[in-house]
Amino acid sequence: METVKLPIGFRFHPTDEELLIHYLKRKVLSLPLPANVIPELEAFQFNPWDLPGDLKEKRYFFCKRKRNLVNKCGYWKSSGRDKQIAASESNNVIGIKKSFVFYQDRKLKTQWVMQEFSLVGFLKTPFLNQRLLMQVGDWVVCRLYQRKRKARSPSISKNELGASVAQTTSLLPMSPSCSSGITDISSSDLDQEASSRFL
Amino acid sequence: METVKLPIGFRFHPTDEELLIHYLKRKVLSLPLPANVIPELEAFQFNPWDLPGDLKEKRYFFCKRKRNLVNKCGYWKSSGRDKQIAASESNNVIGIKKSFVFYQDRKLKTQWVMQEFSLVGFLKTPFLNQRLLMQVGDWVVCRLYQRKRKARSPSISKNELGASVAQTTSLLPMSPSCSSGITDISSSDLDQEASSRFL
Repeated sequence: METVKLPIGFRFHPTDEELLIHYLKRKVLSLPLPANVIPELEAFQFNPWDLPGDLKEKRYFFCKRKRNLVNKCGYWKSSGRDKQIAASESNNVIGIKKSFVFYQDRKLKTQWVMQEFSLVGFLKTPFLNQRLLMQVGDWVVCRLYQRKRKARSPSISKNELGASVAQTTSLLPMSPSCSSGITDISSSDLDQEASSRFL
Repeated sequence: METVKLPIGFRFHPTDEELLIHYLKRKVLSLPLPANVIPELEAFQFNPWDLPGDLKEKRYFFCKRKRNLVNKCGYWKSSGRDKQIAASESNNVIGIKKSFVFYQDRKLKTQWVMQEFSLVGFLKTPFLNQRLLMQVGDWVVCRLYQRKRKARSPSISKNELGASVAQTTSLLPMSPSCSSGITDISSSDLDQEASSRFL
């Protein structure tokens, strides 16, 4: 995977539509991609913190459509409704976004979210007065990120005097091993409870 | 202002910290910037939809610190608490983020948000057992964007059959003129009310 060198502040932040039309669709059609930045990897098979890339950034992976949602440390649970993604110009539905949350040790809900994008096409039926929406292509593209835990910083008085230390919540990557990962989750869950009192 | 050519999906999306340390601080110190992507413009003096750049993207401007929050079409009203931005490595406070919302015709709240970032330094006082936080430098940097209005798309049944038309809410740019802009706001406010019934 070649790296794209960018000035500070620039990053790969595609919209859902760009991801579907310019990356996934071209991948499915075996056409050259705008940039070679999305590795092929069965992302659902790994713990999210073990996947390559910067843990603080949104990460993208091409995966085969048939995926196993369980690995040895936990599983990905479907979260929320599937969302239809429409092309901004035509307003035609071009894809579906499904969201998953990672549960560690089969019970601990983590902050890790995987969004899976698949292409769709319409199938016309001679019998029904409606079109059927179908997933197409062998590939999907996934966006992995860690949901933020925000702690509100103390207010600053208008005369520019304020508390001297900011309260910030960092996104701590979890340990690569399952067991120590659980310890990390427990402690950060406590942090979340503590910080939620400020909200 | 030279343009930075990027493959599709890449954009200028700096973190608050990158914006403060690598752009604003270097601007204040008259050092070369990582990229020449932030124009100097008194952004608060203009209607947000009249400012240069893509209205669907986050836009950035260097402004002089003393700004006038009122223009002929409306005004920017302070929104929420000021937030201290800390450097991720040292956890030292490096800047303050203030947020503003644009009100058109002095009463209509719009979806336009301006975040103003300024550098801060600490002033040691011989009298008090605390450090005073002060804004420093002649420049601030602003991030302008339009708050999203989300309409939830209809659910898709698990057997991949679904409604054939997606519900999407587009971010309509408002007209450059004040009066027609008001009309646009009113109609999109109605849209918002309509879409909120789906939430």
